[in-house]
Amino acid sequence: MDLASLETPVPVVDLDVVEANLKRMQAYCDQHGLALRPHIKTHKIPALAQRQVELGAQGITCQKLGEAEVMVDAGLTDIFISYPLMGEAKAKRLAALAPRAKMRVAIDNPIALATAASAAKQSGAEIGVVIEFDSGAARTGVTSVDAMLELAEAVRATAGLRLDGLMTYPLSAASADFLAVALPQLEARGMAAPVLTGGGTPNAFHAHETAPINELRVGTYIYNDRMMVAAGHAGWADCALHLHVTVISRPTEDRAVIDGGSKSFAADIMPAGVQEGYGYFPDYPEARLERLSEEHGMVDLSACARKPALGERLRVVPNHVCPVSNLHDRIALVRGGEFQGFVEVAARGRTV
Amino acid sequence: MDLASLETPVPVVDLDVVEANLKRMQAYCDQHGLALRPHIKTHKIPALAQRQVELGAQGITCQKLGEAEVMVDAGLTDIFISYPLMGEAKAKRLAALAPRAKMRVAIDNPIALATAASAAKQSGAEIGVVIEFDSGAARTGVTSVDAMLELAEAVRATAGLRLDGLMTYPLSAASADFLAVALPQLEARGMAAPVLTGGGTPNAFHAHETAPINELRVGTYIYNDRMMVAAGHAGWADCALHLHVTVISRPTEDRAVIDGGSKSFAADIMPAGVQEGYGYFPDYPEARLERLSEEHGMVDLSACARKPALGERLRVVPNHVCPVSNLHDRIALVRGGEFQGFVEVAARGRTV
Repeated sequence: MDLASLETPVPVVDLDVVEANLKRMQAYCDQHGLALRPHIKTHKIPALAQRQVELGAQGITCQKLGEAEVMVDAGLTDIFISYPLMGEAKAKRLAALAPRAKMRVAIDNPIALATAASAAKQSGAEIGVVIEFDSGAARTGVTSVDAMLELAEAVRATAGLRLDGLMTYPLSAASADFLAVALPQLEARGMAAPVLTGGGTPNAFHAHETAPINELRVGTYIYNDRMMVAAGHAGWADCALHLHVTVISRPTEDRAVIDGGSKSFAADIMPAGVQEGYGYFPDYPEARLERLSEEHGMVDLSACARKPALGERLRVVPNHVCPVSNLHDRIALVRGGEFQGFVEVAARGRTV
Repeated sequence: MDLASLETPVPVVDLDVVEANLKRMQAYCDQHGLALRPHIKTHKIPALAQRQVELGAQGITCQKLGEAEVMVDAGLTDIFISYPLMGEAKAKRLAALAPRAKMRVAIDNPIALATAASAAKQSGAEIGVVIEFDSGAARTGVTSVDAMLELAEAVRATAGLRLDGLMTYPLSAASADFLAVALPQLEARGMAAPVLTGGGTPNAFHAHETAPINELRVGTYIYNDRMMVAAGHAGWADCALHLHVTVISRPTEDRAVIDGGSKSFAADIMPAGVQEGYGYFPDYPEARLERLSEEHGMVDLSACARKPALGERLRVVPNHVCPVSNLHDRIALVRGGEFQGFVEVAARGRTV
């Protein structure tokens, strides 16, 4: 079977581009003395996580416990869950993983702390904890050094937990400001923060000059996407995942409709002030994927000198590749331009 | 196991509300002499499709061939695929279904016609064809009566195909205008269009006064969502699907973070000029789900007199429920307020 005979829409990943992306990030981290801990939310595929570790990553990052379960089952042994786990059901599942892999979790509140403590007690294995602080995302994370110190003291006072350090996302000037105040205060209280972990692909190659972290969490760099090109992190040739689609309708001279919509591309839009639309057509750069319904993508061809024909197959770079992985049960793999088969997106849909 | 012990995020469907929604739409169609052909894209669950048929639906509508395969495997026998199928791989799959169920497909171009013809030839079973015309969506669909007539003549001239009629989405004043010109011209050429099929939940209860159709395709009405409430089709009590989530962080007085983001809610936004945000909290109507990342939902509580606590479980009505079904492998069912178990979303992810 060759690539052109695969039914569309189908996500196709070029393993040569993946390999180059992985090696570039590992080399950057090696150069600057950063531990690399890739976020598997982008690919959700154990074999790719294993390749990241083979190339030098210290371990992996998962967002949800269900993702970590898939990765531990596949043999990954050093896992950071960068997300507050809350409640006894989660504690029980974390306890089941702790004897099988080195587990670290992020917390920003007392219930998440109690959950990690319960897991440590049930498993008998020590669990590492990092405290998340807000550095501009206005998402999770404590918003003051005092709140961080209070949690750090509580971790120190809790049997089975090990204070590993601090976590920030995104890595920003605010990360540096927080650490400048926080680290001396931790030290003054006799606590250390050996792990200072920061994340985000868009500015990853500036991590060493942004804040004094020693671990980098990045996900999107493995595939890249239209947002990463817009952010200056990657070029189109560094985009490893393309949606292959078919033109299923050409109702007017200037409109093509493709057989992928929000169920294939997700509905993520570009940051305000950047380009509009839902994807980039490398073979028709002037085509604009202007609207999506669930299974239709409406393409404005008015700026195209050459226009795709009815039935033609097109390649599209999505805006944001991580939710695309989450929409497809499997992806097609290519190496050296040749179709290699499908791989299951094993941690797809693990929201719990 | 009771509902409160299910791990979040989890989609929960109230079967009592489903039943009322199904009966209301069936009664409307019965009253106005419309055949009801529900679109299964909203629920993607065979048992719910079967219930729709038991209550009087003539058959079902699927968007993709893969959805139709799931439904035929589950015993559904009258299927309309409201989407152009293109190419030999699709023809072969359609041919495999044709002896097992009454199959009808929509076309708007010659390749889709040839695909249906090939399927009919391979299967030996006649396949019904409706021609889609554009009534304002600027999506698929021929844009002129002449283009429709040309396709209709081609269908008539093709062995194995049966011209069933015309299809429009959304059902609008433009649908009526097109039909007023198209139907006499078909008749003048000795062709009939026994099936006039229109779709869309938001204005479904006005179908009888919008255009002279005789078949209604609606999907969202089974669950309803924030968009259907905004459109005036439903009230909050008619919303059958809620995402149950947990407050996993309370970093500031006015911000809660929930454990569902775009991987649980999808990123569909409300139509311009309506409300902002990504969902509605029935128990905290002033809370605003203002931002989503993949696994986090950021909730602005500044307008709330009473605010949810860390660890509290919340119910959310999503903006658009159809892509929510597509993000979850299974949903929890409730009847009479009691948890009934899970059901697999069997046609989830069937984009091909």
